[in-house]
Amino acid sequence: MAEKIPKPVSKRLVSYYMCLERLIDEGVEVVSSEELAKRLDLKASQIRKDLSYFGEFGKRGVGYNVEHLYNAIGEILGVKKEWKLVVVGAGNIGRAIANYAVMREKGFRIVGIFDNDPSKIGKEVAPGLIVKDVSDLERFVREEGAEIGVIAVPADHAQGVAERLEKCGILGILNFAPVKIKVSVPVENIDITAALRVLTFEIVRRSR
Amino acid sequence: MAEKIPKPVSKRLVSYYMCLERLIDEGVEVVSSEELAKRLDLKASQIRKDLSYFGEFGKRGVGYNVEHLYNAIGEILGVKKEWKLVVVGAGNIGRAIANYAVMREKGFRIVGIFDNDPSKIGKEVAPGLIVKDVSDLERFVREEGAEIGVIAVPADHAQGVAERLEKCGILGILNFAPVKIKVSVPVENIDITAALRVLTFEIVRRSR
Repeated sequence: MAEKIPKPVSKRLVSYYMCLERLIDEGVEVVSSEELAKRLDLKASQIRKDLSYFGEFGKRGVGYNVEHLYNAIGEILGVKKEWKLVVVGAGNIGRAIANYAVMREKGFRIVGIFDNDPSKIGKEVAPGLIVKDVSDLERFVREEGAEIGVIAVPADHAQGVAERLEKCGILGILNFAPVKIKVSVPVENIDITAALRVLTFEIVRRSR
Repeated sequence: MAEKIPKPVSKRLVSYYMCLERLIDEGVEVVSSEELAKRLDLKASQIRKDLSYFGEFGKRGVGYNVEHLYNAIGEILGVKKEWKLVVVGAGNIGRAIANYAVMREKGFRIVGIFDNDPSKIGKEVAPGLIVKDVSDLERFVREEGAEIGVIAVPADHAQGVAERLEKCGILGILNFAPVKIKVSVPVENIDITAALRVLTFEIVRRSR
């Protein structure tokens, strides 16, 4: 079933999951598709349709049991206790990621951070996390069983790092470098400058 | 014309723009839609269709003049010499943004960074950038003519900060807090945990 889910649906599933997480924190037990729609700025009909991919979770006129739906979507998403991440690049972005507590809370644990700059290697950049020489990357990934690689190196090094990560068995890549990388494992890109370009385009468009 | 461009097209326009920027750096003068497609992992027909929104830029069998297309898309996107940004939140993400050289190179200049934590206020977190008390945010934005607000505060403070930014005249918001914010100005979200959830969903899906 999960094989057929289109990308926009999987992105929305993630947003439902995160919204339900907040609802649980707020002590909410039952939620309607209308309330979810309001919180997520989507149409209720869209939400009902998406969730119908996975069978019926809601009761008409009553709503969805928050915890049940949360667990069901979590299972679909393959949420597990812990994913092990390595960060390549100990510059500003790499260090920020290494210190980003929210990730840890959500089950994404940084097990190693790497750089090729001798002035950075050996420095502790987050509690318990000392920058290692990137020449040690492959051995470390294999020994630690790291699953996700975070690329936080300059654009012209990103493809090379991605290929090294792929070869040593990394299952997926989160790429902060402002460049498209080509590997056979899944990649998610976070491009801050691109987001700013989309934002300013929207600003200019509204002012016209 | 620009008013009618759908969001996915505007995102692709941004990616064309950034790709053309790299081509200029590489000294490439003419590019075919096929070469652009290869670099961006899109279909050449898609690219030709997108660019046809803005009139004919390419010559059949020759390709696009890189610099001309770059400037034309830049004009559509409202690229200008400099946008002034304020960052709210001087934690790990806020400080990383303040130090992110690529943004400055692309015309996004951080003019101020704010926090409510007395232990952070007064500290220099990037060259020439001293953390200011967030109580001074509105006055500063108005006086400096800042146009973009970057939200790098915890999720439960994001909506409040967004409303303050909107009221003092900010034109758009880049939001790093893992929560949907509701304001009338355009917002672009960068949600690292959500990207990791989409990535791990794809990893799990492929392993099934």
